[in-house]
Amino acid sequence: MTFRPAAAIGMLLADVDTPCLLLELDAFEHNLKRLMDSLRGTGVKLRPHAKSHKCPEIALRQIALGAVGVCCQKVSEAEAMVAGGVNDVLIANEVVGAAKLERLIALAQQAKIRVCADDAGNIRDLDAATRAVGVTLDVLVEVDVGAHRCGVAPGAPAVALAKQITSCRNLHFAGLQAYQGAAQHMRKVAERREAIARAVEQVQTTTRMLAAAGIKCDYVTGAGTGSYMFEAASSVYHELQAGSYIFMDADYARNEWTESGIPQFEHSLFVWTTVMSAPEKTRVIVDAGLKASSVDSGMPRVADYSDVDYVKASDEHGVLQLKGATRFKVGAKLKLIPGHCDPTVNLYDWYVCVRNGRVEALWPITARGAVL
Amino acid sequence: MTFRPAAAIGMLLADVDTPCLLLELDAFEHNLKRLMDSLRGTGVKLRPHAKSHKCPEIALRQIALGAVGVCCQKVSEAEAMVAGGVNDVLIANEVVGAAKLERLIALAQQAKIRVCADDAGNIRDLDAATRAVGVTLDVLVEVDVGAHRCGVAPGAPAVALAKQITSCRNLHFAGLQAYQGAAQHMRKVAERREAIARAVEQVQTTTRMLAAAGIKCDYVTGAGTGSYMFEAASSVYHELQAGSYIFMDADYARNEWTESGIPQFEHSLFVWTTVMSAPEKTRVIVDAGLKASSVDSGMPRVADYSDVDYVKASDEHGVLQLKGATRFKVGAKLKLIPGHCDPTVNLYDWYVCVRNGRVEALWPITARGAVL
Repeated sequence: MTFRPAAAIGMLLADVDTPCLLLELDAFEHNLKRLMDSLRGTGVKLRPHAKSHKCPEIALRQIALGAVGVCCQKVSEAEAMVAGGVNDVLIANEVVGAAKLERLIALAQQAKIRVCADDAGNIRDLDAATRAVGVTLDVLVEVDVGAHRCGVAPGAPAVALAKQITSCRNLHFAGLQAYQGAAQHMRKVAERREAIARAVEQVQTTTRMLAAAGIKCDYVTGAGTGSYMFEAASSVYHELQAGSYIFMDADYARNEWTESGIPQFEHSLFVWTTVMSAPEKTRVIVDAGLKASSVDSGMPRVADYSDVDYVKASDEHGVLQLKGATRFKVGAKLKLIPGHCDPTVNLYDWYVCVRNGRVEALWPITARGAVL
Repeated sequence: MTFRPAAAIGMLLADVDTPCLLLELDAFEHNLKRLMDSLRGTGVKLRPHAKSHKCPEIALRQIALGAVGVCCQKVSEAEAMVAGGVNDVLIANEVVGAAKLERLIALAQQAKIRVCADDAGNIRDLDAATRAVGVTLDVLVEVDVGAHRCGVAPGAPAVALAKQITSCRNLHFAGLQAYQGAAQHMRKVAERREAIARAVEQVQTTTRMLAAAGIKCDYVTGAGTGSYMFEAASSVYHELQAGSYIFMDADYARNEWTESGIPQFEHSLFVWTTVMSAPEKTRVIVDAGLKASSVDSGMPRVADYSDVDYVKASDEHGVLQLKGATRFKVGAKLKLIPGHCDPTVNLYDWYVCVRNGRVEALWPITARGAVL
């Protein structure tokens, strides 16, 4: 951690310096439990994505409630999780380049590590790197089931890569990574259900062709907070990778969540900010700008005040527009709901964990900045 | 620094791991010199904004070439600059709240520190905090000259605050902060010139009224990379706060810079990234997403390839569209020009400083994350 935290344990929230990242523990614990409860009886496991929280303290709490491990996007993120006590990490992403492969393989000797691949050359590199040190590695084939980001096409191209993996002495074909990222923020429940139904068909096509080729596939992983209920009900996915459910950011809150049977989550993550200037009655400036809350998925929302909008962000400032009776003086503190939780968390070194208006804990975000 | 750097000194650029932040030293040094050269004979001083680079190594190089110190936006940023050897810092921003005032005053006993104010209550707090420890503090009045962010209105309201400061036993009225932030990215030179002409009039109105009230004002500070040439020529501004000129990001490059007499800067800051997936000939995925390059001012641009666009960013991925003959294989590395330098720099712990394709230095970004 480069910086000391903005608070001390036991401090009143009102005294906590700003801007900082607040985690409201009651809402957070509700969210952890709610997702686990919603999976009861499905037989599907939860492997939450640690890219959202980047914090072993959170990962260990997820695992204590029944999660089987975590997902990571980066080798350095996985290193931080293993260092923090997590012993089962799926790198739900491709790992490319000699420096990273070396670290990946070193990590795989300390914990259960799996990785994805979508390219024949990358599989050759993985094989060479494992053979060089005499270890074996579990490799999933990533299939593009609609996100159009990484991943090989379903069906024959995926089977070809699985065959290649099984032919490598030091690699083991571990299953399919099938994350439909494009479905997560489709606003209507019906749209998300339909997108996942198409993804499930593509996975089924691929697993049937794998079986016909004599390749056993007993592990399919994917899903996010916006769609996990459909993957859970699919009879095709074995593990779910939802991450944002623990925080519920402003962008996810814009999804329709009300169709029956879909669990709802509470906002638990906030940016705590101070009114630092009040040039007009209806326009005040807060001390949380682009370096305190990522705006890639829209501006933060102002919590607790329905008549106040955060309308503009610059590097260190946010402009609030007061549309109703609410007025703020310089020095007033308030909570913002980040537009997008993952890149916002990545700006901070600490969670200031709050319950009933008092700081209960400080959790270090040890994978903050882990991009390698 | 939480993380080790992505490179070692002496390494070939081609071997540097990704994503990381590259600083091309030839272009960087050109930019440092070009701005200083353009101020020669104007009598106006440069006090570059350290919020752009957050790195004492850079601040000290700016000072070695003639800068009088730096600006900061946050007390914690100023602490990092003073710790790194900078002994003259203008906090070009308001500082609000007891915890920050205590740190501000402690810092003012270690280095020359000035701060801005735009609120009578804040001035009372500054006065009380300085009296509590028996020190004096230089305070500027921030005037809103068109940015409509912080700042009191020009003229009588600004004079009233200056009077209040002069009436405080432990505060000294140090001048006017008059930054026209809204002018910096007006695309046409003529628009920026006109916006600064209006700002200059508002400063002049205020300084005339201050003089009439018997308050001497011999220090007016403001300006940014997009407009500094106009403040420099105004005979009203004494110091310039440009920051981004050292890097020249993609958003600033969209400004018109060609009217005669306006110095141009070169892109020196890049995100070094790897093609990690190549699902189609005309669509490849790089390992630099939202956590590697801020998109608040638009997507990053792809350097060196005019027929390749970075079209979409997610947390850890970027989608490149290949519009022409250029093709990339998995493992290829390339440079991105960040859309907005300041929040991009704030994502990293290190500059990997490169010259002629080799790593020459590693500079720690010690104020990364300094939001308090």
